Amino acid sequence: MSNIQPLHRIKAESETDPFLHESEVRSYCRSFDATFSTAKGSRLTCANGRSYIDFLAGCSALNYGHNDPDMVAALLEYLETGGVAMGLDLHTQAKAQFIDTFVRLILEPRSLAYRLQFPGPTGTNAVEAAMKLARKVTGRLQIIAFTNGFHGCSTGALAATANRHHRMGAAVQLHGVTRAYFDGYLGPDVDTADQLDKALSDPSSGFDLPAAILVETVQGEGGLNVASGGWMQKIAAIARKHGALLIVDDIQAGCGRTGSFFSFEPHEIAPDIVVLSKSLSGFGLPMSLVLIHPDIDQWAPGEHNGTFRGNSLAFITAAIALGKFWSDDGLMRDARRRGKMIRAALEDMARLIPAARVKGRGMMLGLDVGNGRVAGAISRRCFATGLIIETSGARGEVVKVLAPLTTPDEVLGDGLGILRAAVEQQAARTPRAS
Amino acid sequence: MSNIQPLHRIKAESETDPFLHESEVRSYCRSFDATFSTAKGSRLTCANGRSYIDFLAGCSALNYGHNDPDMVAALLEYLETGGVAMGLDLHTQAKAQFIDTFVRLILEPRSLAYRLQFPGPTGTNAVEAAMKLARKVTGRLQIIAFTNGFHGCSTGALAATANRHHRMGAAVQLHGVTRAYFDGYLGPDVDTADQLDKALSDPSSGFDLPAAILVETVQGEGGLNVASGGWMQKIAAIARKHGALLIVDDIQAGCGRTGSFFSFEPHEIAPDIVVLSKSLSGFGLPMSLVLIHPDIDQWAPGEHNGTFRGNSLAFITAAIALGKFWSDDGLMRDARRRGKMIRAALEDMARLIPAARVKGRGMMLGLDVGNGRVAGAISRRCFATGLIIETSGARGEVVKVLAPLTTPDEVLGDGLGILRAAVEQQAARTPRAS
Amino acid sequence: MSNIQPLHRIKAESETDPFLHESEVRSYCRSFDATFSTAKGSRLTCANGRSYIDFLAGCSALNYGHNDPDMVAALLEYLETGGVAMGLDLHTQAKAQFIDTFVRLILEPRSLAYRLQFPGPTGTNAVEAAMKLARKVTGRLQIIAFTNGFHGCSTGALAATANRHHRMGAAVQLHGVTRAYFDGYLGPDVDTADQLDKALSDPSSGFDLPAAILVETVQGEGGLNVASGGWMQKIAAIARKHGALLIVDDIQAGCGRTGSFFSFEPHEIAPDIVVLSKSLSGFGLPMSLVLIHPDIDQWAPGEHNGTFRGNSLAFITAAIALGKFWSDDGLMRDARRRGKMIRAALEDMARLIPAARVKGRGMMLGLDVGNGRVAGAISRRCFATGLIIETSGARGEVVKVLAPLTTPDEVLGDGLGILRAAVEQQAARTPRAS
Amino acid sequence: MSNIQPLHRIKAESETDPFLHESEVRSYCRSFDATFSTAKGSRLTCANGRSYIDFLAGCSALNYGHNDPDMVAALLEYLETGGVAMGLDLHTQAKAQFIDTFVRLILEPRSLAYRLQFPGPTGTNAVEAAMKLARKVTGRLQIIAFTNGFHGCSTGALAATANRHHRMGAAVQLHGVTRAYFDGYLGPDVDTADQLDKALSDPSSGFDLPAAILVETVQGEGGLNVASGGWMQKIAAIARKHGALLIVDDIQAGCGRTGSFFSFEPHEIAPDIVVLSKSLSGFGLPMSLVLIHPDIDQWAPGEHNGTFRGNSLAFITAAIALGKFWSDDGLMRDARRRGKMIRAALEDMARLIPAARVKGRGMMLGLDVGNGRVAGAISRRCFATGLIIETSGARGEVVKVLAPLTTPDEVLGDGLGILRAAVEQQAARTPRAS
Repeated sequence: MSNIQPLHRIKAESETDPFLHESEVRSYCRSFDATFSTAKGSRLTCANGRSYIDFLAGCSALNYGHNDPDMVAALLEYLETGGVAMGLDLHTQAKAQFIDTFVRLILEPRSLAYRLQFPGPTGTNAVEAAMKLARKVTGRLQIIAFTNGFHGCSTGALAATANRHHRMGAAVQLHGVTRAYFDGYLGPDVDTADQLDKALSDPSSGFDLPAAILVETVQGEGGLNVASGGWMQKIAAIARKHGALLIVDDIQAGCGRTGSFFSFEPHEIAPDIVVLSKSLSGFGLPMSLVLIHPDIDQWAPGEHNGTFRGNSLAFITAAIALGKFWSDDGLMRDARRRGKMIRAALEDMARLIPAARVKGRGMMLGLDVGNGRVAGAISRRCFATGLIIETSGARGEVVKVLAPLTTPDEVLGDGLGILRAAVEQQAARTPRAS
Repeated sequence: MSNIQPLHRIKAESETDPFLHESEVRSYCRSFDATFSTAKGSRLTCANGRSYIDFLAGCSALNYGHNDPDMVAALLEYLETGGVAMGLDLHTQAKAQFIDTFVRLILEPRSLAYRLQFPGPTGTNAVEAAMKLARKVTGRLQIIAFTNGFHGCSTGALAATANRHHRMGAAVQLHGVTRAYFDGYLGPDVDTADQLDKALSDPSSGFDLPAAILVETVQGEGGLNVASGGWMQKIAAIARKHGALLIVDDIQAGCGRTGSFFSFEPHEIAPDIVVLSKSLSGFGLPMSLVLIHPDIDQWAPGEHNGTFRGNSLAFITAAIALGKFWSDDGLMRDARRRGKMIRAALEDMARLIPAARVKGRGMMLGLDVGNGRVAGAISRRCFATGLIIETSGARGEVVKVLAPLTTPDEVLGDGLGILRAAVEQQAARTPRAS
Repeated sequence: MSNIQPLHRIKAESETDPFLHESEVRSYCRSFDATFSTAKGSRLTCANGRSYIDFLAGCSALNYGHNDPDMVAALLEYLETGGVAMGLDLHTQAKAQFIDTFVRLILEPRSLAYRLQFPGPTGTNAVEAAMKLARKVTGRLQIIAFTNGFHGCSTGALAATANRHHRMGAAVQLHGVTRAYFDGYLGPDVDTADQLDKALSDPSSGFDLPAAILVETVQGEGGLNVASGGWMQKIAAIARKHGALLIVDDIQAGCGRTGSFFSFEPHEIAPDIVVLSKSLSGFGLPMSLVLIHPDIDQWAPGEHNGTFRGNSLAFITAAIALGKFWSDDGLMRDARRRGKMIRAALEDMARLIPAARVKGRGMMLGLDVGNGRVAGAISRRCFATGLIIETSGARGEVVKVLAPLTTPDEVLGDGLGILRAAVEQQAARTPRAS
Repeated sequence: MSNIQPLHRIKAESETDPFLHESEVRSYCRSFDATFSTAKGSRLTCANGRSYIDFLAGCSALNYGHNDPDMVAALLEYLETGGVAMGLDLHTQAKAQFIDTFVRLILEPRSLAYRLQFPGPTGTNAVEAAMKLARKVTGRLQIIAFTNGFHGCSTGALAATANRHHRMGAAVQLHGVTRAYFDGYLGPDVDTADQLDKALSDPSSGFDLPAAILVETVQGEGGLNVASGGWMQKIAAIARKHGALLIVDDIQAGCGRTGSFFSFEPHEIAPDIVVLSKSLSGFGLPMSLVLIHPDIDQWAPGEHNGTFRGNSLAFITAAIALGKFWSDDGLMRDARRRGKMIRAALEDMARLIPAARVKGRGMMLGLDVGNGRVAGAISRRCFATGLIIETSGARGEVVKVLAPLTTPDEVLGDGLGILRAAVEQQAARTPRAS
């Protein structure tokens, strides 16, 4: 008995192609239509042997590349010795090791004293936790979020996400978020932080006093828009002035992507809450973390929960990742060098396409080619010639280089070469004067 | 520079106890205060060698026990051969294998033709996806959810969750959900499905026509309340009659826990959407799945997304779990036998405590001892004597036996023995007539 | 320049018929298609001389009939002596006189010590004020409202209104209201107050603790459903038990309509907030009033405002109405006698139509004929033969007698005669067994 | 039996002072603490004979002054001849006469072909109707409203109102409104219309496509901020471009206050919906009107209703007002002359207070003295010397001259003299350099 219609037989093709059973919601597999079987470092390989350089890197969830051998070794040992794989939010040795390492290598050297909350292991769940806590602590409702921001797709976080495509999916009113203009959104001459301060200072502006300001220092999905240090400091000051918390969503920009573990380190601000996920486990395993200033750790026990808060395999690889890459400044030195190399290559390419420009910071860089059609064509050409690279931005107009931070220089060069060839071909098709 | 207060130095103890860095939100670790290191089957073991029988089983995320050796072997092989660990929603061989196995062993034998959506790998993300899709498909807003229901803690799902403790955490208005009475909530003589039908049939009842009815067949967190088959069939008919979708949240009750893969199989209904998570990966790894009737698979590509939709390690273990436990009816035969064994033991214990009664279905059973204080005391006694067992229900009044379905009979007997001793001790302290 | 389309010329007919300029939203004038010019007591008269008995009475806004001569005289005098017609919320003599009279004749004799708030002079504005205040005072969001309840059409009040036709008009999510079953909604054997108490007492029911319970003692628009005294007392006790305010919406049932000034007087309850409007001015002039227990008068000055809070003409007639009709029990004695007369006549008519029954209380009575088609036909027949009478109820199935309380017995008899003839004719057309 | 506490006896004073029974929400009567009894033209008089010039004019609800003799005469005649006082939304001769006059004298000469909706007779109810209709017609949720805007206090309209004092009163989440910056809010060099267009044109801005843009051409409560014609035209074009309706809230600025019947006439735009109230009845009686372009008159009958839609006394005076003041351009010529007179006087006064400046348009003018403390002191001085004048603006910093348009020049001069004296006294107390 079906609730809607007599069930119809699944088409015969699906008996051989399992992906025909997947929902229409699938997306990346439409752009990169291959079935991948193995991966190593900055390369993904198909069962048929075809190999791709990966400049998508799990959408920045693979900052240390695929299947780091030390993490694999640690996982093998943990599994072979019967380590607790699933720990709810019980105390486990795996979690103890992660916490200890994180505090020692990340928080203490930066003089940051955050409490750690492990929510359901996705970025959106962590953002939801941060928003909830800010509202609880302040007794206020509104969260300020910015144009072109992306914070996830569950209902609470989606209210903060700016993308209309995702927002329409909600089919329910998204509320509790007040939109403000990101740094540079209104052009280089308009200080959008001053605008926000004016609105919050005016009791008749219609901007309710917010629980928090939620911000990405570099908007990954929004098109690699970079907030300046001065703007971030103003935003931090505005939050403090108006009794709001500052939440930095460092899901995509954190874990070294922009040249430091936290993307806000060069800005010398200390957010009240920081949200991490993506590359946190180091291995692409589901994990997320909410860092909470101790003064506002006002959760009741279990108030925000979830089954998979204790994904031990992720704790194991995360601890290895921290120990291997954050005990000294080697990774960041390499990343800065590689960032410059990418930027130089992109600047070169930008000259080929009218009005194109380079955006981003650290190794979170992209080439804005002005429209999504051109960017999409470049991405498709790259895929045809062995490079996985995605687009982002309001209209998909930015070709986004998110290579693993550990990509060897020669592989990076090869990937950039493929990209340049694709840009050249595209430029040849596009009349220079348009 | 802190946004709130000068940072204060973390207290010295935390330098030796990493868990002092955890947020106040932690919960299970408060009841079961030990640090676990290894696990196998139905046992958890601490670094100090102390071992516990596990009747919590990852809150039903470990229906096949901890660290099943065949799944461990498959993981080792996958890791050693460099299988893609993190696949976004790209096509991967790991996913292909899971889909193929799931369709072949679960859907086809039950004549169910669902499309598969892999959302962010937590239950709450899957519930959010289901609610969104129902609203999109019907163009309606309200979702009917039931008293004592539990569906997760992100904002959209939390609106459907009935628990006040979790709801208060939102600090934002939870909306889009209309509450109805679950089967039996108003006593055995009141047919709450008829009430709901009357309200939806009345254009002036104030119950807006709903996008969906969201229901658990057995309410795990709500206190092991069991919906009867007749009531479930009425609910399915009411949904159809009023143009609403039927969503079964089988996160806790699915994957064999109640005696069949889907908890609704004995009721002979075919929900429009089914939500699975918890034991789906078989190993306790983060994974969730939304099953969608093809007629309503109206997602736009990428409309609901998330980074960790392709947790390959979970796909690997999930496929093994299906092959090992669902190729024949061995597991379910064992589970039914063990369910009877547990029920008999609990019925015996119920006689020791005034007004106590057994609740639940299959191997999802519990002893309702009437109040949370008594149940909590029993749980604590059990832990002191080697058994991990939790409580559930509106006031925590149900001692919940969620042993792995694979628990050997002798271990099950040992665990029930510990429980019985705790109940006896508690009964001795509680005057029979109160 | 038009924002939508070039303006099209209004059709020629409208040059002679001004009502063609009215929006499609007009309603009563569709059922009673005549242009009325004068009115007196229980009669409305058209320019062409055709006269109608009025059993609609401004939807109970004319409990003392049209154009009471004493009120007319007072208005004439006030206007001739230049009394302040428009007073914002300034102190005026007209308001002083009303307050003094209301306190002396209504509040003090009933030992009620309410503060008076004059909101924008419509019922819905008063309901909005009451809901706002309850939320402010309790710090809670949800308002419990009932099936078939009607409380107005502005967004806040509309959330409490049950009627789907009106709710759909919102096109925006209506929220902050939890729906409960009214007395008798689930049949005579189900105590819906007990259900509500159970749900509010259960911390896992999904019913958030409410700011207030908002209730009509007799649901006018909902079909003349009468809450019993016992039920109302339980509801009052439930509100108190759970820290919620009790708000009685006495807009339609108040001002004597049910046999006492406040409809809840026989129930011996003292609501925290009472909302009055409709017949309050006595003359059908816009006026409304929120009565607030002094302990919860926690408004900030001007927090809820509106231009027409000081409609002096309404204050003038309201004071006259109170003095003339509420200085002794004459009106209520008459009303009770007339109520019995109407009830007896309706009981007689009920025998003519299968399953018909009489509903209501006092002079707020109606004949439920089972469906809206039949009731509509009766209303149309009445209008054709000189009686204005409306229908109410979820499907318009109740022919509603809302004659002015002051209707002379002979006019009342004439009206009931017209109604009986219409019922007889309808009964003759409807096969008895259907 | 009280629901909260034993009732306490109202203090003895209230037995002599009826206003002690009023709720704390009362406001104007706190600033102008006198009991008014009669009024005529631009004067209000107390029972004790003390008389005041009225520069508040019912907050612009008395553009033709108090108790216009022709309107009084018409009311007397209507009452004496038994005209229908309360007409629900039935057709009445009083309404026919109003519609006919309004169409003939207001709409036709301006080539405007609106349909007329009579909602509940308050401004906020009319705004609610306009917002509902825009959402229904477009199927969209969000309404763009502006900084410093004021649109009423019922929940739907309050979401659009910017004032924090009023917004806090809601205690419920206000939603469905996106805030944008009004003309000039960010200084003279920032084009806030361009900002809005950019945000709406960007699919990733987080600004959902709106159902409507709701705007006042001059923000009365917001501090007499004037939108330029160019900005209004851009806003109209932006609405059209993005498929949104343009709603002009002309409640305070309409009915001649700014120098033309509709405030937007000089801007040569044709809004899709116009909302009128306040001075519409001409006599300060409760009345409001929603003007709807025929193409979008998509209401279902009765979808938005209310008891007092047919306040005939208001229809009578409104028709007289239109005939008397809008048959020729006499009133507007006078108003323009008086506007210049007021502006000149205020410019003079502005020189006395550092940084003071004149704001507004037509006879909707004010003196911004920079802060609310100074403005309040001026208002109090005026009242002590015979002038009622209020403040507005985000912090009450604007002394607002809202004299009746019909104020004789000599009375206007007297009032301005009192105001100037108060400003001088204040200036003498305030050190020039601060």
